[in-house]
Amino acid sequence: MKRVFVSCFLLIAAFTTHAQEKVDQAMVSKIKKEGFDNSKVMDIAFHLTDANGPRLSGSPGLLKASNWAKNEMAKWGLTNAALEPWGEFGKGWELQKSYVAMTAPYYKPLIAYPKTWTKGSNGLKNAPILLIKAKDSVELAAYKGQFKGKAILVYRTDTLVPTYKADASRYTDEELDKLAAYQLPQPSQAPADTAELRRRREAMQRRGAGGPNLANLIKDFATKEGAVAILSVSPRGHEGTLFVQGGGSYAPEAPENPLDIMLAFEDYMTFCRLANAGIPVSLDVDVKTAFQTRDTKGYNVVAEIKGTDPKLKDEIVMLGGHIDSWQSSTGATDNAAGCAVMMEAVRILKTLGVQPRRTIRIALWSGEEQGLLGSRNYVKNHFADPATMKLLPDHEKVSAYFNIDNGTGKIRGIYTQGNEKVKDIFSAWLAPFHDLGAKTVTLSNTGGTDHQSFDAVGIPGFQFIQDAIEYNTRTHHTNMDSYDHLQADDLKQISVIVASFVYHTAMRDEKLPRKELPQARGAGGGRF
Amino acid sequence: MKRVFVSCFLLIAAFTTHAQEKVDQAMVSKIKKEGFDNSKVMDIAFHLTDANGPRLSGSPGLLKASNWAKNEMAKWGLTNAALEPWGEFGKGWELQKSYVAMTAPYYKPLIAYPKTWTKGSNGLKNAPILLIKAKDSVELAAYKGQFKGKAILVYRTDTLVPTYKADASRYTDEELDKLAAYQLPQPSQAPADTAELRRRREAMQRRGAGGPNLANLIKDFATKEGAVAILSVSPRGHEGTLFVQGGGSYAPEAPENPLDIMLAFEDYMTFCRLANAGIPVSLDVDVKTAFQTRDTKGYNVVAEIKGTDPKLKDEIVMLGGHIDSWQSSTGATDNAAGCAVMMEAVRILKTLGVQPRRTIRIALWSGEEQGLLGSRNYVKNHFADPATMKLLPDHEKVSAYFNIDNGTGKIRGIYTQGNEKVKDIFSAWLAPFHDLGAKTVTLSNTGGTDHQSFDAVGIPGFQFIQDAIEYNTRTHHTNMDSYDHLQADDLKQISVIVASFVYHTAMRDEKLPRKELPQARGAGGGRF
Repeated sequence: MKRVFVSCFLLIAAFTTHAQEKVDQAMVSKIKKEGFDNSKVMDIAFHLTDANGPRLSGSPGLLKASNWAKNEMAKWGLTNAALEPWGEFGKGWELQKSYVAMTAPYYKPLIAYPKTWTKGSNGLKNAPILLIKAKDSVELAAYKGQFKGKAILVYRTDTLVPTYKADASRYTDEELDKLAAYQLPQPSQAPADTAELRRRREAMQRRGAGGPNLANLIKDFATKEGAVAILSVSPRGHEGTLFVQGGGSYAPEAPENPLDIMLAFEDYMTFCRLANAGIPVSLDVDVKTAFQTRDTKGYNVVAEIKGTDPKLKDEIVMLGGHIDSWQSSTGATDNAAGCAVMMEAVRILKTLGVQPRRTIRIALWSGEEQGLLGSRNYVKNHFADPATMKLLPDHEKVSAYFNIDNGTGKIRGIYTQGNEKVKDIFSAWLAPFHDLGAKTVTLSNTGGTDHQSFDAVGIPGFQFIQDAIEYNTRTHHTNMDSYDHLQADDLKQISVIVASFVYHTAMRDEKLPRKELPQARGAGGGRF
Repeated sequence: MKRVFVSCFLLIAAFTTHAQEKVDQAMVSKIKKEGFDNSKVMDIAFHLTDANGPRLSGSPGLLKASNWAKNEMAKWGLTNAALEPWGEFGKGWELQKSYVAMTAPYYKPLIAYPKTWTKGSNGLKNAPILLIKAKDSVELAAYKGQFKGKAILVYRTDTLVPTYKADASRYTDEELDKLAAYQLPQPSQAPADTAELRRRREAMQRRGAGGPNLANLIKDFATKEGAVAILSVSPRGHEGTLFVQGGGSYAPEAPENPLDIMLAFEDYMTFCRLANAGIPVSLDVDVKTAFQTRDTKGYNVVAEIKGTDPKLKDEIVMLGGHIDSWQSSTGATDNAAGCAVMMEAVRILKTLGVQPRRTIRIALWSGEEQGLLGSRNYVKNHFADPATMKLLPDHEKVSAYFNIDNGTGKIRGIYTQGNEKVKDIFSAWLAPFHDLGAKTVTLSNTGGTDHQSFDAVGIPGFQFIQDAIEYNTRTHHTNMDSYDHLQADDLKQISVIVASFVYHTAMRDEKLPRKELPQARGAGGGRF
């Protein structure tokens, strides 16, 4: 009798419920033990960042990191580890030399990073600065004929405001409560129909890129007349932190973009003040870049832990994050962090010898920084095209996709993307992690990363709520996105929670409930 | 009658008193108007920073800035504007080229600054990193013979802590209240006698520089075997902010110091992790520096507004700050700010046509960063040597010296350096500036800059209490100490308050009261 009693007790303990949702406490404990005591997450992150270098889409660095991840997961015993092409990406690019310094009115080393996909200087050039003070194309015309051999500087008068707010932060209880209390808008409050949304989107795109805007005109002048470089600045960056992204098209047939160099705010503004005071400024510029068009395809890294339930093993639970980065650092928080925790989550599950009912599939996306290209194309190739919403056979087999791409901060909860039917399920799954700071389930959604590719075709795709730490101030798309800015304890917590979510999704009797299928977006509605 | 009444009223208004101390409200109003409405302080700062470049002691940059300041003040009508030699400084040095990049395991531009007074690389060198893991000279001996052609990296394992505290701050009321409430220690609580103080100081110096410490041994190995460079880091700096100072002796007869390069924390730690993992790291290093020994004297910039009272015109009120800086930026907050506000203060007074009873003398010191050398030698040459305390005739003629050297933050009050007799005087003089945030008079003292040279020989020397802003986190001795980090409104406030203090000191019937004369320090007690 006693024995029977104990068994019953264990059974109850093993499957405590929150709104009837099962939680396998014993497995959670094992995952926690492996994830906290034997973590490999920082070692994985080291290999993706320090040891590999930048992972720009299409670059040799990304290919190297992708192969490392594939091989590593194969070593752990995952199956079907592969680099899966998703379609045409574009030109590869890498930086091979960058020396940029001020030589007049005195010598000063500069903090400078050529933007991606821009060409080099063709050797060392000494370039006087051409100060452009033009509000529009008419005023710019006065500078015609003056670009040759110059470093082009568009005048600014920004004032730097000292940072009286800390660079790093974590969610407060109040902020989390607000997220938890979020209610879905009533139909009448919701934005108008899809056609209206599309019109708004297209109008935004026109404002952003269309027309003869000044930056494009300057680029044309620089190209035609042979400027040495265009100089750029991002006032979001200061004190040596620079936000650096792309310098133009990476399409295979596109002409090489003129050299465009992102400078430290303080250096750029010094040039503006000097040039404006009539003091000649010259730069030494010696930048070498290399394009590659041998293979213009994009690749995602995929690997699996095969399902074991005869009825469910063809169904899949996916987890992932994008592995591509920008160029000026090694993309540690954006998004080696996401890849490292996802790889660590499958390593934990594999190490524990789990026998998931459904197949667990990890995917590390490329081309995310250029518009979620890797995940969008993967979804289109495997599940559905949001333009037509013609569903492929595997569309119904995916229970959910879980994504990490908000930096190094630990998980504080999860966005349901407006899916009310998963709220109680996720609340139950988070219960074992309240002591680790993760408890909030919000009906709110979040955008900007790869879960949207799934959500866009009606497959449950989720992104977790993460503490920001220094993501928005110091690391996201900056030259400071390095391994040092990763928080080891946070990444362990993420790995453990993701492993548990993925495990429970794989073991659940039913797939996760879905929202209504979205309407077809049409060919013009590809971006979301 | 009415007219007489008005005159009396004006007389009362013009000389309101706080503990009987006169305040010339009309002059204060004029100073405020000129200082806030017609300020030139940011223009002066621009010339000292952006337009001039770094102002390392002994460098061509310092000479240029000093001459500019001298000529500018002469233009304003100040008399006796001159570069006054104060004695032997040492070698001049300037940076003529600095290209430092990682070339293996992948290419990465680095944020790097050669330390001052180190030699160059003699052209472009590709240097593999030699990782040193040695706790002492015995362990270091194992690396003997391996330095040639290498970049020397001493292993560290620091973890970067995100900044949950804002970089910039201002004094809170509570902090100011605490300063105001400061009481001088009773004689029994005071530190022991001068001999004891000297013993402590010498012991500290021994710990800091003496003995066969590891850094000196590595420098010896690097020199003897021909390393390309020693790599350095300061963990106080992060996210692109680097703290960079000197790399060795600047004495005329000293051998050239081996090249020593300060790297961004994130770059240095990346090298440590890579090298520790057995992944070879190589750097391209192309650094050119130039020494000059043609003129090894140090110079201060001095200029005067002559006194007009026949009895008092040989007495002087001094104001100043150091004009020398470190090398990696243009020394905006340390201490172009101090020079700019002091120059602006005399400009305001000259513009207003004041006829001071005593002579007002501004001094912009050099060699401050190497131990208050310019001001200490000036005091020794003109007033007294603290070693002997034999007083020169002018010692009794100085009423006070006012100094600014704590960055760009506005004045919140003044340190009396323990001089109880000036407390009520300064309180009265601050009364017109309470609305500008300046009200605190503290008996506490503050150290580290040029007022100490005066205080050390018993001449009242004062430094103001200033808001820190980003001084300790981002600008003081960093590569980010640029014009952009100056706060224009704060500098205007400082200029105005200093002008008023100097004016009132010049007009006062008596010189400011002095503390007791200090005892002679003896030859070994030169540093304070």
